[in-house]
Amino acid sequence: MNFASDNVGGAHPAILAALAEAAASGPAAAYGADPYSAALAARLGALFEHAVAVFPVATGTAANALALAALTPPWGGVLCHAHAHIQDDECGAVEALSGARLLPVPGADGKLTPALLAARLATMRRGDQHQVQPAAISLSQATECGTLYRPAEVAALGAFARDQGLRLHMDGARFANAVARLGCAPAALTWQAGVDVLSLGATKNGALAAEAVLFFDRDLARDFSYRRKRAGHLLSKMRFLSAQLLAYLDHDLWLVNAQRANGLADRLAAGLAAVPGLALAHPVEANEVFVEMPAALAERLLGAGAQFYPWGPTAADGRGCYRLVTGFDTPETAVRQFIALARGTAESA
Amino acid sequence: MNFASDNVGGAHPAILAALAEAAASGPAAAYGADPYSAALAARLGALFEHAVAVFPVATGTAANALALAALTPPWGGVLCHAHAHIQDDECGAVEALSGARLLPVPGADGKLTPALLAARLATMRRGDQHQVQPAAISLSQATECGTLYRPAEVAALGAFARDQGLRLHMDGARFANAVARLGCAPAALTWQAGVDVLSLGATKNGALAAEAVLFFDRDLARDFSYRRKRAGHLLSKMRFLSAQLLAYLDHDLWLVNAQRANGLADRLAAGLAAVPGLALAHPVEANEVFVEMPAALAERLLGAGAQFYPWGPTAADGRGCYRLVTGFDTPETAVRQFIALARGTAESA
Amino acid sequence: MNFASDNVGGAHPAILAALAEAAASGPAAAYGADPYSAALAARLGALFEHAVAVFPVATGTAANALALAALTPPWGGVLCHAHAHIQDDECGAVEALSGARLLPVPGADGKLTPALLAARLATMRRGDQHQVQPAAISLSQATECGTLYRPAEVAALGAFARDQGLRLHMDGARFANAVARLGCAPAALTWQAGVDVLSLGATKNGALAAEAVLFFDRDLARDFSYRRKRAGHLLSKMRFLSAQLLAYLDHDLWLVNAQRANGLADRLAAGLAAVPGLALAHPVEANEVFVEMPAALAERLLGAGAQFYPWGPTAADGRGCYRLVTGFDTPETAVRQFIALARGTAESA
Amino acid sequence: MNFASDNVGGAHPAILAALAEAAASGPAAAYGADPYSAALAARLGALFEHAVAVFPVATGTAANALALAALTPPWGGVLCHAHAHIQDDECGAVEALSGARLLPVPGADGKLTPALLAARLATMRRGDQHQVQPAAISLSQATECGTLYRPAEVAALGAFARDQGLRLHMDGARFANAVARLGCAPAALTWQAGVDVLSLGATKNGALAAEAVLFFDRDLARDFSYRRKRAGHLLSKMRFLSAQLLAYLDHDLWLVNAQRANGLADRLAAGLAAVPGLALAHPVEANEVFVEMPAALAERLLGAGAQFYPWGPTAADGRGCYRLVTGFDTPETAVRQFIALARGTAESA
Repeated sequence: MNFASDNVGGAHPAILAALAEAAASGPAAAYGADPYSAALAARLGALFEHAVAVFPVATGTAANALALAALTPPWGGVLCHAHAHIQDDECGAVEALSGARLLPVPGADGKLTPALLAARLATMRRGDQHQVQPAAISLSQATECGTLYRPAEVAALGAFARDQGLRLHMDGARFANAVARLGCAPAALTWQAGVDVLSLGATKNGALAAEAVLFFDRDLARDFSYRRKRAGHLLSKMRFLSAQLLAYLDHDLWLVNAQRANGLADRLAAGLAAVPGLALAHPVEANEVFVEMPAALAERLLGAGAQFYPWGPTAADGRGCYRLVTGFDTPETAVRQFIALARGTAESA
Repeated sequence: MNFASDNVGGAHPAILAALAEAAASGPAAAYGADPYSAALAARLGALFEHAVAVFPVATGTAANALALAALTPPWGGVLCHAHAHIQDDECGAVEALSGARLLPVPGADGKLTPALLAARLATMRRGDQHQVQPAAISLSQATECGTLYRPAEVAALGAFARDQGLRLHMDGARFANAVARLGCAPAALTWQAGVDVLSLGATKNGALAAEAVLFFDRDLARDFSYRRKRAGHLLSKMRFLSAQLLAYLDHDLWLVNAQRANGLADRLAAGLAAVPGLALAHPVEANEVFVEMPAALAERLLGAGAQFYPWGPTAADGRGCYRLVTGFDTPETAVRQFIALARGTAESA
Repeated sequence: MNFASDNVGGAHPAILAALAEAAASGPAAAYGADPYSAALAARLGALFEHAVAVFPVATGTAANALALAALTPPWGGVLCHAHAHIQDDECGAVEALSGARLLPVPGADGKLTPALLAARLATMRRGDQHQVQPAAISLSQATECGTLYRPAEVAALGAFARDQGLRLHMDGARFANAVARLGCAPAALTWQAGVDVLSLGATKNGALAAEAVLFFDRDLARDFSYRRKRAGHLLSKMRFLSAQLLAYLDHDLWLVNAQRANGLADRLAAGLAAVPGLALAHPVEANEVFVEMPAALAERLLGAGAQFYPWGPTAADGRGCYRLVTGFDTPETAVRQFIALARGTAESA
Repeated sequence: MNFASDNVGGAHPAILAALAEAAASGPAAAYGADPYSAALAARLGALFEHAVAVFPVATGTAANALALAALTPPWGGVLCHAHAHIQDDECGAVEALSGARLLPVPGADGKLTPALLAARLATMRRGDQHQVQPAAISLSQATECGTLYRPAEVAALGAFARDQGLRLHMDGARFANAVARLGCAPAALTWQAGVDVLSLGATKNGALAAEAVLFFDRDLARDFSYRRKRAGHLLSKMRFLSAQLLAYLDHDLWLVNAQRANGLADRLAAGLAAVPGLALAHPVEANEVFVEMPAALAERLLGAGAQFYPWGPTAADGRGCYRLVTGFDTPETAVRQFIALARGTAESA
């Protein structure tokens, strides 16, 4: 019953098999000049129906920080949700690698809207040398609350960004979960909606360690290879990143895995919502379930061996919010057991 | 006949098997709180006969830059060989992640000596606010010329560093090749000789992407976890780095692989040195062969399908220096074929 | 009627005279090894009743950013008021020179309290490598709302800082205005209350360009000379900074000037508060007056030649907040004229 | 007999008078929107016969570091003389404010030539993501050896820079000394010769603290105001920088002062060269004299109260090189006395 995160998972056998094949394929040019990396760029171009400049890296933090560094000068500001991963969970990596300041904006269910962003921008002085200058917007898809932006929502934010002279970045650590749920084309959630750069995650959804920075506007990528190398993020045996990502896309593995995780989250949410005293804090749209319950109950569940994290402090009435995450390899039994445990514990309380 | 680098190699089956096992081992805590990572620290402590703080990362550039960032303030200077990898091949990553300036020092066969360092330091003003202040020395073991520091040589540099109030870092991208050749204990080349921090490489010698920063003085490591995260170098599924490194150490795989590569380099060197017109530029002590030959000959060898790099510009007499690197999985036939090709081409010229 | 800022002012004749004397005093060692700089350190030590390490610089932004850089690691966080100058008006200089992230905290009348800070800290995870780590608190004295911290208020914040393992910085761009108003010893507002480092301003209060960073804990200053030089903030003819600061302290000029500016602010506030439709937004405790009035009225006052700035956006009811600042050399007639203008314009509306 | 540096000098009365006038001129907009700053830009445009973007700052280190930051990306390299001030005497400020690496090039008499630069560039791999990419050249005029680049020499370097796709910066801390000696138009030494950005110094030649960054290509200056502010180098009462610079240019004060200092250096050089055992190390073309003499003699001169610095270590034969600098306010008697002292001491030895 480990719902601590989707990065507690292992790796998918198909991705391991691809690594084994790549490992045995004989010498290959280093640093991305290998056939796997060439194939990856072509594959992603086809998938996104747009020419892309692709830069694989080993962590999502690197993908986000380097992508944003390409979009903002050191005196720039990056508008993001107040609970975005780049704000709350990356120890200042965006600032460290770009120089920019994050400009956090609160928003319901983890989501930004043009109106929220406009209100935040209205407090800033554009063109004034005394202030950090807004340069980019960063969206998380799925959000930190497990919710999703629909294509029209991204497009509205993209239009807002263009109007305001801002670049648009998408942190797609759980992009697969979004596409799997929404059933739309990747293009509709990205460049067609105004996204300039996507951090495409694979690690949480079946890879060992593989993310890719995708530039839809290739001019923006002109200097990216230097940025990546200078930050220590250019892997020498790049084939092993590219091979993971290729296997991730092959046979729609990324969507199959995400669909499974999403489905388990749905079942978990439905089961927990039916337990007296429990309530969902946000719509469940990807693979994360946020549930409110008495802290005492949560303690007992954790004591019984379940794993999940509190999400924010316990309120004065003794209730807290807790996050449960399902992954591509979460056992169905874990979901069933946890629902039963929650029900049993709640009823015996 | 690919001798371009040891990072053109694949990965060792035992390391792949370890990854497969780790991938199927069920959920594990992320970010290094997993059993593989715990075992790794213990294993490295035993191997080095000293308690160590261990931080796996995915690239050697990250290992070097982050290790040095822990040893120097932003206004510090890092003494290194004029052709050190951190100086010539990492696009300023040390400067980017530490703020420090590299202070390159020329030295025969890629090696530094206390005398060379003392001469360089004599040109600097210690304690003068107008100058970058020397803070650390970085050695490469093996060096960029494929030569090795003996334990006594490292110890002399370690004593010099202590005398001068400097910290000592070792870039051990090819540390295995050194230990395999010298037959000494890892301790004798590191902390017993005054090394504070080691970048221990595995990628070039059989891993897919795995390096470890080892602190022998654990006080120096106090803030390292923040440095690593902030630079985007904390992998979420850390077990996959640790599992690679464990398999690398198991059954002395690191030494077996290095011995094989070293042996092939010896054979390559012996074969080439016997070809008329060819001469070794440096002693062959690890897995790199530097050979001088007419540039026209080198062109023909490359044209025939061999792969290797020129090392510096062609001299006025038409001769150049070329680097050939063997790896853990370089085929013996490639060595034989290349020697034969070189001999045949040279004789037919 | 120029109330735009206290930096629209000129310079005090006594400070100019000191510059002229220093200019004609013959050769003097550069970079702070001159007699003026030595005298300054002694004078400030006496004034603050505590040994201090003193570092003059030419701008308040430099003083703040360098002071904070000495208090926080690059992954640190600096708690400050949501409208602190370092947050709103320095284009990210603290981040640029320290690496740290600012952690803005809203608070009434520009002021922080232990309770507000505790609430902010409660949302952060101390010791978690994924988050920026709180390292320091920065107070502005006077605040951006023209209010003051009493000695007991600073002491409460100082005790809180110590409890939390945080350092305490005071942005004293208008420190003189605070001391002049509160009538307390400088020590009572600084080291006795737990302040580690003070940015002591003189520019707004009669100097041409002179600020000083004062460390009460001299261990914290150990590396400051390198930080200052490396950021380009070490003036070669340092005597000209030190001479300004000495003249600023001589004959209590700093307090005389501040008292005058404070008194003019009092008169301005009293006069404006008596105009129908105008209201003070914050208590007037230093040399800044924040007044709420209809935006249309403000437009007319500006149109009539008065100079002052809006402070935030106009509200839906058409009223806005405006800042008026008096300085050491603001003419009394300007105050009288402006009050009369405001009254006349308001009544004719 | 203080020849330690030209920054041991005081300030010129005309510049002090200008400060006094500016101080008493009533309120003026801050941060450069004042009439003095407007006049300065026009004046410099006329003097240089070219539209310029002008940014006054208080230190030469800031001028150089910020100017170069505008010319190079963080992964860029700046070619400079091995003994350039930015390399030897600014504690890494260029690196700190730009991210770039300095690429020092030795050259006789402190001077760079296209051939020297071409040789240095030949060792680097342009367009290779593993290396810092050459982005700019920085010349010092006068050089650190007190020599000058003629207009044709600068033009040759400018043409080389354009050919190589590099920007050209001139550190003109002693630009006045160069123009005064060469008798050429400022334009001929700068934009007409390919210089993109000039750090124009006034501090060493009569100002209290005033330097200006001049962009001849105004596109390069687009973001400079943010860079300056973010580094803490935007003075609030900017009129006091601009007023110094205006007075510096008025009535050719800059050239008069420089001519006087140059002339004193000539006399000092002639006098010393005639002393047995003394020899000039470099041609004396500006206001610096480098003289070789026995270290024992130098000790006695210093012991007799003269002030000057050794320039590099004492050689094995007991002789050293020493730098003597004259300034706009060096007394003629100091020059006469020092020559007499040197002669007398040498003869009595």
